[in-house]
This record gives sequence, structure tokens and C-alpha cells, in this order.
Amino acid sequence: MPIRVTVWNEFRHEKAKGEKYDLVRSIYPKGIHEAIASHLRKNKDLSVKTAWLDQPEHGMAEKVLKNIDVLVWWGHGHHQAVSDEVVTRIQKRVLEGMGFIALHSGHASKPFTRLMGTSGRLKWREVGEREILWVTKPGHPILAGINDHFSLEHEEMYGEFFDVPEPMETLLISNFAGGEVFRSGMTWERGQGKVFYFRPGHETYPTYKDKNVLRIIENAVKWCAPVEGGTVLPGFPNPKLGWVDEG
Amino acid sequence: MPIRVTVWNEFRHEKAKGEKYDLVRSIYPKGIHEAIASHLRKNKDLSVKTAWLDQPEHGMAEKVLKNIDVLVWWGHGHHQAVSDEVVTRIQKRVLEGMGFIALHSGHASKPFTRLMGTSGRLKWREVGEREILWVTKPGHPILAGINDHFSLEHEEMYGEFFDVPEPMETLLISNFAGGEVFRSGMTWERGQGKVFYFRPGHETYPTYKDKNVLRIIENAVKWCAPVEGGTVLPGFPNPKLGWVDEG
Amino acid sequence: MPIRVTVWNEFRHEKAKGEKYDLVRSIYPKGIHEAIASHLRKNKDLSVKTAWLDQPEHGMAEKVLKNIDVLVWWGHGHHQAVSDEVVTRIQKRVLEGMGFIALHSGHASKPFTRLMGTSGRLKWREVGEREILWVTKPGHPILAGINDHFSLEHEEMYGEFFDVPEPMETLLISNFAGGEVFRSGMTWERGQGKVFYFRPGHETYPTYKDKNVLRIIENAVKWCAPVEGGTVLPGFPNPKLGWVDEG
Amino acid sequence: MPIRVTVWNEFRHEKAKGEKYDLVRSIYPKGIHEAIASHLRKNKDLSVKTAWLDQPEHGMAEKVLKNIDVLVWWGHGHHQAVSDEVVTRIQKRVLEGMGFIALHSGHASKPFTRLMGTSGRLKWREVGEREILWVTKPGHPILAGINDHFSLEHEEMYGEFFDVPEPMETLLISNFAGGEVFRSGMTWERGQGKVFYFRPGHETYPTYKDKNVLRIIENAVKWCAPVEGGTVLPGFPNPKLGWVDEG
Repeated sequence: MPIRVTVWNEFRHEKAKGEKYDLVRSIYPKGIHEAIASHLRKNKDLSVKTAWLDQPEHGMAEKVLKNIDVLVWWGHGHHQAVSDEVVTRIQKRVLEGMGFIALHSGHASKPFTRLMGTSGRLKWREVGEREILWVTKPGHPILAGINDHFSLEHEEMYGEFFDVPEPMETLLISNFAGGEVFRSGMTWERGQGKVFYFRPGHETYPTYKDKNVLRIIENAVKWCAPVEGGTVLPGFPNPKLGWVDEG
Repeated sequence: MPIRVTVWNEFRHEKAKGEKYDLVRSIYPKGIHEAIASHLRKNKDLSVKTAWLDQPEHGMAEKVLKNIDVLVWWGHGHHQAVSDEVVTRIQKRVLEGMGFIALHSGHASKPFTRLMGTSGRLKWREVGEREILWVTKPGHPILAGINDHFSLEHEEMYGEFFDVPEPMETLLISNFAGGEVFRSGMTWERGQGKVFYFRPGHETYPTYKDKNVLRIIENAVKWCAPVEGGTVLPGFPNPKLGWVDEG
Repeated sequence: MPIRVTVWNEFRHEKAKGEKYDLVRSIYPKGIHEAIASHLRKNKDLSVKTAWLDQPEHGMAEKVLKNIDVLVWWGHGHHQAVSDEVVTRIQKRVLEGMGFIALHSGHASKPFTRLMGTSGRLKWREVGEREILWVTKPGHPILAGINDHFSLEHEEMYGEFFDVPEPMETLLISNFAGGEVFRSGMTWERGQGKVFYFRPGHETYPTYKDKNVLRIIENAVKWCAPVEGGTVLPGFPNPKLGWVDEG
Repeated sequence: MPIRVTVWNEFRHEKAKGEKYDLVRSIYPKGIHEAIASHLRKNKDLSVKTAWLDQPEHGMAEKVLKNIDVLVWWGHGHHQAVSDEVVTRIQKRVLEGMGFIALHSGHASKPFTRLMGTSGRLKWREVGEREILWVTKPGHPILAGINDHFSLEHEEMYGEFFDVPEPMETLLISNFAGGEVFRSGMTWERGQGKVFYFRPGHETYPTYKDKNVLRIIENAVKWCAPVEGGTVLPGFPNPKLGWVDEG
């Protein structure tokens, strides 16, 4: 059984008017979601779909979500346009076991901050400076095939303090040419679901064409996938006194 | 400067009609909040207030909250009556540094589940069975003065799985006579604030008269209090490139 | 490529004289290691070997260890007979990525306490009482196929405080009929290697014939296995200033 | 009762011959331990002593250790000269509740790696480059009075991967001018004791005269101090079946 992954994108930058958006379009003519999804489709163990903000229910209808194993989320300028009802639905699915991967500006998205319980705030600077990402958890499945570091020539800077709960694991830390640092790869668990945050991916740079970035997303999809035969929640009634002796 | 602590209670069980509520009233004639607050008031390092659900804004007005260092929360049957606006306000204060202590059925309260990002669900049984609480983190400030275990003769049972994120520290685990276990004392950090969950305290048992229970709540208030001179969030602007060299 | 797993056993109880040891022998005529190994061999993804204390170098020669992906360790009465040199060798392999699973009284074994940095001490009682193990992390790969709890009719009691570092994840907590609790399944990471502790398995009870116990060990072997293409440590030299600009 | 803190130093660099050591001596004429201790002595809540490698038992005799609440450790070139017996003694005291603070090259010291269970290895470069330390856990007691970041003009570089277990809390991350990052402030718990690692402090730079560095060490001493009335380990016998009913 393949892992059923959906790549979600706001998909508004790519269709907006203006010089900045022309640049986004020139890099990602079919949208950021397609850049990621087309990479994932090369992996025969994955069954890949896409969804975006302006679809009905943001493409996240109850019966659609029920059949997603891992949801990859890219959002930036329109977090508030996502309905609370859909956010609650996504949170519930994560607690049941769906993996959730927040990319880049997804740090401030509603589903991510709902799962974290914090603001997701951070410092930022958009001048296209050099980012070096250092591995701080070698041997982790999400880092399979990645050397001790890799670089992105131009990226938006994100700086600490990043307001998220202490992670289960810190996988990557970035050094920015301007002097800042950032915890760029972190894992958490919520209910039966796994969550991964991965920093890179500003829309005006070709980050989702970088082989290390794509490899990490692909690894993360596999790591986040729910376990077959996992205990479904809530699946167990309140027990009566004496159940132990009754067997 | 004393630690400014507020004990919040639904304070509806104590005023309701019916045999069960007569029992609650006979144990806590002035309300659960007063049982806890009157103990805390003996500590000269604490400045203690109370608040409850049916006050305007649930006693949690913006300017009131601003002056609370640690908020102790007991809620049970009326979680949904707490307004989302007040919950958002409490969450914001925790991220700024206010300590938050959720007691017993506060596991399902809106402020606690908002901070956790999970459902807070668990198993339960109300037959007044024996609970033994075992220390799993000796030497922790919250457990100062507590032996390796203590018992409560009659309590409501709470059983695992308890749907909360993996804690920073597991301090106490309960053994129930009926065969269940429960992680009864756990800590987390959210933003600049500390969070503690403490299991015991069903309204029909005199749990908040137990010296171990009261000692743990008192210790936890001190542990959760914000640090003087802590960095206030959000307090730092997005830095411009070149700031490092400009000093 | 199958996962190369070795099940290590003291293998002295099974060969000792006396009534107690006759009992051990009657349950595990070929030794505890064979009871576990024979189960694992049914899984075609695993390549299974055994080793024991009285072999040369305890069966843990340098070139043998180099080819082990996951080491399962059962020791009880003869921890001090394991040489420090072999312990150092095992620790090094774990840091390089080998998985390590400590079973039952392995809580006090030299390799486990070396990896933990703590004493591994606990309370215990050997009267063959009932143990109920509760799942506290549903959806975890190690718990695939396990319900919300399972019971062992007769086991040695282990009680808290268990002197190990706060785990990455608490997977199972036991309730003992005598009133104690114990964190019976816990995970940690050390260097590139994963570590799992699993409580049950006293030698005088047929615990390693229980299907839940065997399933968990099998799941854990898969979870602990090193990642293909992981970063090998230490694999990177101290960098010279200027390497960033030189590419 | 004041906190009884001892600052331990190898104290060999300061007495060695050669140009490099003349430099160390010119910065720390009384030794690194005295630079730190003289700062701590200004705090009336602390009772401060020093000890060093070439004293009998390295100044860590059983009865001396018994009366230390927090041990600050600076070692660099002579880790192997510390006897295993003293290391075991220190580890035991930490498990009983003594705080332990490893400074700078103490990352590879015997007491620290014993407590961690890992190698403590890292990358390094000694060219005196600029280090910026960023706060990643605002509101933590160890960071009281520290802004969102501070800089050291000249320091030795330490780079990831730093082979330590995932910390309880990551407090500080460094950005080095040469492109590396490092987790420069981390906490762990071992038994009843707290452990803090703090990166800065190469002997050829006046780092232990920096007010932020000194403030953090002072804060950490207070955070690491054992709790009055904490449960002493091992203090509880193995319980007999039936103790629950016997009271």
C-alpha cells in the first residue's frame, strides 16, 4: 500500500499580478505544490495529490482528509483565509495518525500553530542571503542521504526566537550570512500523528528545485506516515471496576 | 515581590441543586478555589486571589490577567461556557511568561487543550477507588517534601491513553486499584511560560485537603512563576542586513 | 537487505544447578535468546544471530559488532562479568548507528547504564504478581498491532523511581497488582543510534512466549535499525576558515 | 542557607611554559577558576570554593563532594588525567542531586561524557572569530537578564554535529562568522541532578570577563542547585506484597 500524500499550497502568489509575482510564476509556473508533488511522484511508494486554498473547503473535505496519510502544507500570505472548521478537522486527523509537514512560512499557518499551542512567531529578513543548514541529528530517517551540511545560495532569513514548543528532535540548524541562526528542522508528536517543520522555501527562490530540500521532504513524508495496525483513537470505552478479574 | 497567583474555579457544582452537589458543598463550603487559595495564603511569598466562571469575562479581564504570574485552573462540567476570546487571552499571557496549572478535569478545559494542541482525552471511572501516586522525578522542585509515593483513599480514576504531547518531564504516575495507570504530574513549556498538569481533585472527595496534594500545588506555583528580567516577547524587531558590523 | 539482529543472553541461569534453574530450563530449554531469536526468524526481513556471555569476547568481537544492526540484550545476575572493553565497543557502535534493546534486568547492565549515564536502579519484588501494560503512545511503530493494554499473569514487579534520563518517548506504563507502577517501554537516542528499554521478561515466567511481548520486540528491532545512507560519525574534518566562500 | 558551589579547573595551561600559555596567564593571572569564582562571590546567596586537577584526588575527595551543591567544570587538555574513581564519585553525587555545569572544552571531559552516555565530539577551529549567541528559550531562569542575543568578538569555533543526547531544553545557539552553528546552552537531568552545558570560554580569550557569560554561569548555578527536602536516592527499600493494605 502506497503512502497517500497531499501537497497543499495557497496557490495565490503564483496567480497574482505584479513584478514579484511574475518572478514566483517564472520559477514555479505550475505552482509550488506541483514542484514538490512532481518530485514525490517519482517515488513509487507514494501516491501523490495536490490541493489549494481556493478549492471548496480548501480541498480538505471530511472524506478527502480521511484518505490522506501525510499532508504537506505551504501557506504564506493568506493564513487567515483558512476556515477554523477546516483547521479543527485537520487537527483531529493528525491526532488520529495523519502526518503533517509545515513548510517555510507555514510556521504561522493555522493548522501548525493549532497543533503547537504557540504563536509560531519569528524574526525575518528578505534580502536573499546565503543559508547553511547543519545536521544536528545524524542517522535520523529524515536526513538519510544528507551530508553534515548543505547550502542554499539565496533564501529569506528566519531568526530565533522561533516560538514553538521544545521539539522532540532538532534535526537541522541554519546559519545565515547576516548573523542569525534558526532551528530549521524539528519534529513533534501530537496524538497518534507526527509533525515535521522544515524551514526553507521562500517563493521567490528556486528552493524546491534543490535536491537536498526535495530529498528531506521525501524522507519526511515516509517518516510521518501512520503505522499500519496502530491503535485508533478514541477506540476504547471507559472501563468498569472489576474488568481485570473478569478477564 | 510576592508571586501573584489566581485560583480559578467553575464554582457551579458548589452552588447547584441535588444530592451530589450537597456532597460537594459539604466538603468545600466556600468552593474548591477557596480550599486551595486558603492553603496558598499561608505562604508569605504568594499573593493570592480567586476568580470564577460566572464573573464578567470569567474574572479574566485583560488588565486582570496582565497582573497574574500564575493561574491555577479547575473546571469540569462547563468547559464550553468559557469564551474563546478569554482563552486566546490566557494563551497569549502564558506565551509571555505566566505560569499555568491545570488541575484534574482541567485536562479537557479550553485553555489547557489550546496550549497542548491535543484533545486532552482520557479514560475515567467514578467509583471512589484508591489511587497511589508514585514519584518518577525525585529532586524536582515541584516534588520538594514528597516521599517516593503517597496515596488517596478515594478518587475518580483517570486512565491512559491521556492525549497530551510528550511532556518535558513526567513527575508522577498513578496506580489505580482497578488496574489502570495515569501520568498524574507533567510539565511543558510554551513560549516563555511554564505549564503543569496535576491529576487529583474530583469534587466529591476531600482531595484538596490532603497535605501532599496541597504541597505539590504550592511547589508548582513557585516553579511556574515567571523569571524576573526574562526576555519579553515579542520584543525584538526584524533585523536589517549589516547590523552585525554596525554593532 | 535484511536487518542484522543479534540476541545476546547471559545464558548462565539456563545452565545452572538448583530448583530455580530447573524451572528456567523447563521454560526455555534452549535459552532465553533462542526463544526470542526463533520468533524473530519468522520475519523474512530479519537476519538473526545469537551470542552469549561465556563466548570469547562475550561473542562481541570488533568485526562481529561491525556487522550488527540491532543488538538485543538480556542480562541479569552477571553484569559485572562483562568486560569494560566490550562495553566501550558496544557504546561506540550505538553512537555509529547500531540499535540497542535492553530487556528486563538489562536495566542494570553495563552497556545500558553506560548509554544512559545513570544508575538504572529501581524497586523490585519477585512474587509472580499480575502486570498490566498500558499504551501511552498509540500510533508508535513499536506498538503496531498492540491494543490499548495487555496483561501478563505472573511477572516480577519493577517499581519507580527507575533511574534513567527522561526518555524521548514513554510508550508503555505497567500497573502491578501490588500497587506499583513502572515505565515499561521507553526510547532514547544516542549519537546515531536508537535505544529501547522493554521491561518484561523475568526468567522464571514464560514471558517470551507471550505474543504481545514478542510483537513489541519484533517491532522494536525494526524501529531501532539504522537508516541506509545515514551520515557516518565521525566523518567530517574540522573546517578551515573561508571554506564557505571557496565552495 | 547559601548554595555551595565549587569551580573546578585543570589549572595547567595557566602554569605552563610557552607563548600561548603566557597569553592565558596574562588574561587569567589567578587561573580561569578564580575569574569565575570571584564573580560568583559577589552573590551573597552563594558560598564559593575552587579546586583543580593537581590537588590530591583532584580536590574531589568523598567528603568534599558530599558538601558541594553545584560543581562547575573547566577542563581542556588533560581530561585523561582525571581518575575514573573520581569520575564515578562525581556521577554518583549528580544522581543524588548535585548540579553539574560543564564549560567549553568540558564537552569532552570524563564527568560530562559519563553523564551523557555519548562521545561529546564536535568540530572546532581556533582562529578567534566572532560568535553570536542567540536565545532560543526566552523566560528560562538561566537566561534571566540576557537580551535576545549577545556577541563575543573573538572565540574558538565549535561546530555541529555535537554528539550529546537530545537536551531537555536548548537555551542558546551560536552563529560563527565562518559559517557554522552550535547548540551553546543545553540542559539535561540525570537522577536527581541537573546538568547544564555552556559553550564559550577558550583560554586565550577574555570570555570569562564578559558580563553576559558571567551572568549566565551565575544564573545556571542557581538553577542547578538541589531542592531542599528533595527525595534522597536510593532511599526506599523493595516493598513487600501487601504493603498497600497494611498502610
